Amino acid sequence: MACRKKDAHEKETTPIEQCAYVSNPYLSTMKEDILYHFDLGTRTHDLPAMFGDVKFVCVGGSPWRMKSFIQYMNEFLGLGCATAEIPDICAHTDRYSMYKVGPVLAISHGIGIPSILIMLHELIKLLCHAKCSDVVAFRIGTSGGIGVQPGTVVITKESVNPLFNPVLEQNVMGVTQSYPTTLSGYLAQEMLNCSKELDKFDTILGNTLCTTDFYEGQARLDGAFCHYTTEDKMNYLHAAHKAGVRNIEMESAAFAAICARSGLPGAVVCVTLLDRLQGDQISSSHEVLSEYQKRPQTLVGYYIKKKLNTK
Amino acid sequence: MACRKKDAHEKETTPIEQCAYVSNPYLSTMKEDILYHFDLGTRTHDLPAMFGDVKFVCVGGSPWRMKSFIQYMNEFLGLGCATAEIPDICAHTDRYSMYKVGPVLAISHGIGIPSILIMLHELIKLLCHAKCSDVVAFRIGTSGGIGVQPGTVVITKESVNPLFNPVLEQNVMGVTQSYPTTLSGYLAQEMLNCSKELDKFDTILGNTLCTTDFYEGQARLDGAFCHYTTEDKMNYLHAAHKAGVRNIEMESAAFAAICARSGLPGAVVCVTLLDRLQGDQISSSHEVLSEYQKRPQTLVGYYIKKKLNTK
Repeated sequence: MACRKKDAHEKETTPIEQCAYVSNPYLSTMKEDILYHFDLGTRTHDLPAMFGDVKFVCVGGSPWRMKSFIQYMNEFLGLGCATAEIPDICAHTDRYSMYKVGPVLAISHGIGIPSILIMLHELIKLLCHAKCSDVVAFRIGTSGGIGVQPGTVVITKESVNPLFNPVLEQNVMGVTQSYPTTLSGYLAQEMLNCSKELDKFDTILGNTLCTTDFYEGQARLDGAFCHYTTEDKMNYLHAAHKAGVRNIEMESAAFAAICARSGLPGAVVCVTLLDRLQGDQISSSHEVLSEYQKRPQTLVGYYIKKKLNTK
Repeated sequence: MACRKKDAHEKETTPIEQCAYVSNPYLSTMKEDILYHFDLGTRTHDLPAMFGDVKFVCVGGSPWRMKSFIQYMNEFLGLGCATAEIPDICAHTDRYSMYKVGPVLAISHGIGIPSILIMLHELIKLLCHAKCSDVVAFRIGTSGGIGVQPGTVVITKESVNPLFNPVLEQNVMGVTQSYPTTLSGYLAQEMLNCSKELDKFDTILGNTLCTTDFYEGQARLDGAFCHYTTEDKMNYLHAAHKAGVRNIEMESAAFAAICARSGLPGAVVCVTLLDRLQGDQISSSHEVLSEYQKRPQTLVGYYIKKKLNTK
């Protein structure tokens, strides 16, 4: 997979830690590493045997969606049937769900940057302990669109913050650290090419606004509190659109920043459930929303199968 | 319940919206309100009939813990047995879980401020649509301790940010808004008195540090990335302790800010799973951690029963 070598971000390195993805000199001094939120550990589980062959990691907010994705991949890759009961590897905790078929690992991450950050820290350590290499990561999710038809799939060019800058700001011991959120342009283009080959739904490249709140943080008028006007909201959404933003969600900045920090090529592929220029409430039928939510899965599944077939 | 009238924070008000807890003039103009993440709505559900009698709302990160809490309350309040299968009101979505017995509503909120904020916006609207009044809210959770024995229950005096200030900062349309996170001092003292009557485990009043990350954001040395030293970490934790911080978690600032904004009296009651001055990994046995996690439930349950008996 040329994209990984060609396009991987320059990763942080330390002289002590040799693993490809982590950057923490303290890890190699630990006798045991408990991945608490996965209910996995280096002493209690044979992580290389369990995960050593992982090449594709797909993460998404909803545990049900990740289960349905792995069942779909099971059949799509000819490994089993789509109704097979695939066990949740994190069954002893309800924080995250994790499923695996062949080289594909699927993990839920809940809602928001803090929730996905925990999962990503433990995932990066897991890949390291399991001695994985040449892994590609995807976030498949749902989002609100800006000026696009509901059901459109947006492949993220840059994940931007509420000021439309491509950075993730994190407070570490009282000091704000800033991490770039630029994603692999090569992988995004590959995904766009896949969508053209698939030709099943509208797919575009666009910037993704990542917020820390769904209501006020996304200028909605239907939260419990609202101290701005429809005009304020529309001005903000139009400014976002002018900055290249085509959808809004709540995790891409953390996903992109951790991909960049670890050198893991990553893509964010989210479907839009509504056009925020037309309204705030998600009022489409369950059936319509359910079909929309399968689109990122279909696209990422197509990419994975194609890569496996050209190996 | 005198505490509510005596100690409720001054709430934001609008001339249009009459409901006790919300502050959004647009809500009364909507024909329907879909509480998307609860899979509930004003047209599809009779919210006053379903929730009108709610007087105590208890929220916590883990869906399993909230189910176990509601089963415990079912028996403790003499409404049924602790093994009764109480249905998840949000069963059609996997974003949050919601359970109700008598006047007690329990809802899971996932991990982190963004995740709990969505739940709280929809909860506040739910209480409004259901015409609830005189409600008291609790967050029951787990946390890392600072200089306290693992298993200690901390009732939050003030929820503070990484700079140890009692505020929640939220970006709304590119502008940072700051909301106070001061909790009801009267309710906190009442909870402390209850713990003395109970006399089952150590309970203290202390400040709670609310972070947006579990690893670097809490100065852990065991994340996928670490660019600071043990000394940096210990200096920060000691500075936190000096600022009155006794535990660290990831949701109290949002809970406290929304309680203050809505006028809902609220308390944060979290058990500490480890002492961060001694280490970073949560390595106690499943049984020990499980017993610890029941402590906030026991304390809040005791308070609720006491209030119901003195009505």
